[in-house]
Amino acid sequence: MTAAALVAVDWGTSSLRGALLDARGQVIAERAAPRGILTVVPGTFPAVFAELFGDWMGQAGHALICGMAGSRQGWAEAPYCPAPAALADLAARLHWVLPGRVGIVPGVTCDMHGVPDVMRGEETQVIGSLRITGLQDATLVLPGTHSKWVQVRGGAIAGFRTFMTGEIFALLAQHSILARTLQDDGGVLDEEAFRVGVRHARDHAAGLLHGAFSARTLSLFDRLPAAAGRSYLSGLVIGEELRAAAPPAGSDVVLTGGEALTQRYAIALEAAGVRGTRIGSEAAWAGLWAIAQALPAR
Amino acid sequence: MTAAALVAVDWGTSSLRGALLDARGQVIAERAAPRGILTVVPGTFPAVFAELFGDWMGQAGHALICGMAGSRQGWAEAPYCPAPAALADLAARLHWVLPGRVGIVPGVTCDMHGVPDVMRGEETQVIGSLRITGLQDATLVLPGTHSKWVQVRGGAIAGFRTFMTGEIFALLAQHSILARTLQDDGGVLDEEAFRVGVRHARDHAAGLLHGAFSARTLSLFDRLPAAAGRSYLSGLVIGEELRAAAPPAGSDVVLTGGEALTQRYAIALEAAGVRGTRIGSEAAWAGLWAIAQALPAR
Repeated sequence: MTAAALVAVDWGTSSLRGALLDARGQVIAERAAPRGILTVVPGTFPAVFAELFGDWMGQAGHALICGMAGSRQGWAEAPYCPAPAALADLAARLHWVLPGRVGIVPGVTCDMHGVPDVMRGEETQVIGSLRITGLQDATLVLPGTHSKWVQVRGGAIAGFRTFMTGEIFALLAQHSILARTLQDDGGVLDEEAFRVGVRHARDHAAGLLHGAFSARTLSLFDRLPAAAGRSYLSGLVIGEELRAAAPPAGSDVVLTGGEALTQRYAIALEAAGVRGTRIGSEAAWAGLWAIAQALPAR
Repeated sequence: MTAAALVAVDWGTSSLRGALLDARGQVIAERAAPRGILTVVPGTFPAVFAELFGDWMGQAGHALICGMAGSRQGWAEAPYCPAPAALADLAARLHWVLPGRVGIVPGVTCDMHGVPDVMRGEETQVIGSLRITGLQDATLVLPGTHSKWVQVRGGAIAGFRTFMTGEIFALLAQHSILARTLQDDGGVLDEEAFRVGVRHARDHAAGLLHGAFSARTLSLFDRLPAAAGRSYLSGLVIGEELRAAAPPAGSDVVLTGGEALTQRYAIALEAAGVRGTRIGSEAAWAGLWAIAQALPAR
């Protein structure tokens, strides 16, 4: 029997998942629950944690948590670690909610042209991605509701930018005038329509305010099948993110996240001449394990 | 007593307004009603029109309507007039719903880089703005839910682009994560916060997907008062429209629309070194009058 060594938890806004890791950081078991921080009554985080992971805690004794559980609306606010932030900085600033037993990884903040940016949870996926790839200098892209483009220098998070890509896609698809002509596609990608959207965003650099309207007019003139509308819009919005982030052609990026989304980004990046190395959600476990190993001796 | 000569109606998606014009095109009376086309049961447009304007029709005998009443979801579909579209083209393609008595002005379509764009209602405001200013060559901006940037050459609408500025502002302010920290400001502009948003959009040309997130982070770090949040976001979104539309510094544009919105655009344009001449909603009446005068003899 493998000895359990760490309960690793990625506790986000709308969902939560955990893994039980052995003494080499390998996953023994995984579980997920629809218990994002928005579903937790303030003051009941310890009880919800015990209910979900009490059995694993009995085996492993320790837990590390990353994500929005460390925000003002979460279990306890873990103050942001300023960039540049390396593994040792995150470990040194771990915020213990149950001393010596349960710790929350701090988010990271950086200053871009006088405007702050923030991440919570992605810093851990970055650390994990660096461990998995062995890279010390890289550009990482973590697609999602709020995509992050992260510059890593010498193993530390040097700076990053947030793009509200997933959220604005959902707003346009569900609540805007475009919703009238878009059909539910069950999340199935129409790759050709997606590529057309990416190209349109790249070639007509007038930005999303103008570009998004093409999803309506192409449909009005029967030049975009209703069933392909969501894929086209997805291509437009992701293409706009790429246009703005502007990775140089010929460069490499690490794409960390869920399979469906990193696949779309890989297609869009390829069209821009950028190679994307895809890493799955195991990055969070690798990151939490690396932080656990780096904790100052107690 | 002034003789009534034309009932002029601007019938939009969510609202409707009308004016009774005299034989020189001057406004005798105006009225508005919350009877946008979305509130009208298909097939009942003639009855709604008679209820709202029957008295004026008794005096004037004729009516011209512009706006979404001419769309597929409106009274009757008035096929788009392709650009370049001059006054005479619009008059020649007037779509009569009550022959000789009630006509609908067609919208205009253009092709921009292989992607169609459309307007319905704005073409009439453009014609009116040209009448009011005496211009034959100009760039017109019609801010709104869907802003239009219109190029006029030799008195004709040569081409235009739509920006979903007002709609995306509303989605961000009401339905996105930004809504959590924005306070209702009753539509009162905080000019300083608005200017900061315009500057941010201009100086950090990473587009709205990234820029919008600054409304959250500035608020997180107490660098943007909650009461100024909507003005800042408004500046960001309008600033992004200007960045994308990119009018040359030193140029002039005609700004046609409601006072509150054209004021904001005038401030943002001024920051970009562009002079904006503001024209109010009387542009629609001037446009409908001009079209009525240009109708082919019957």
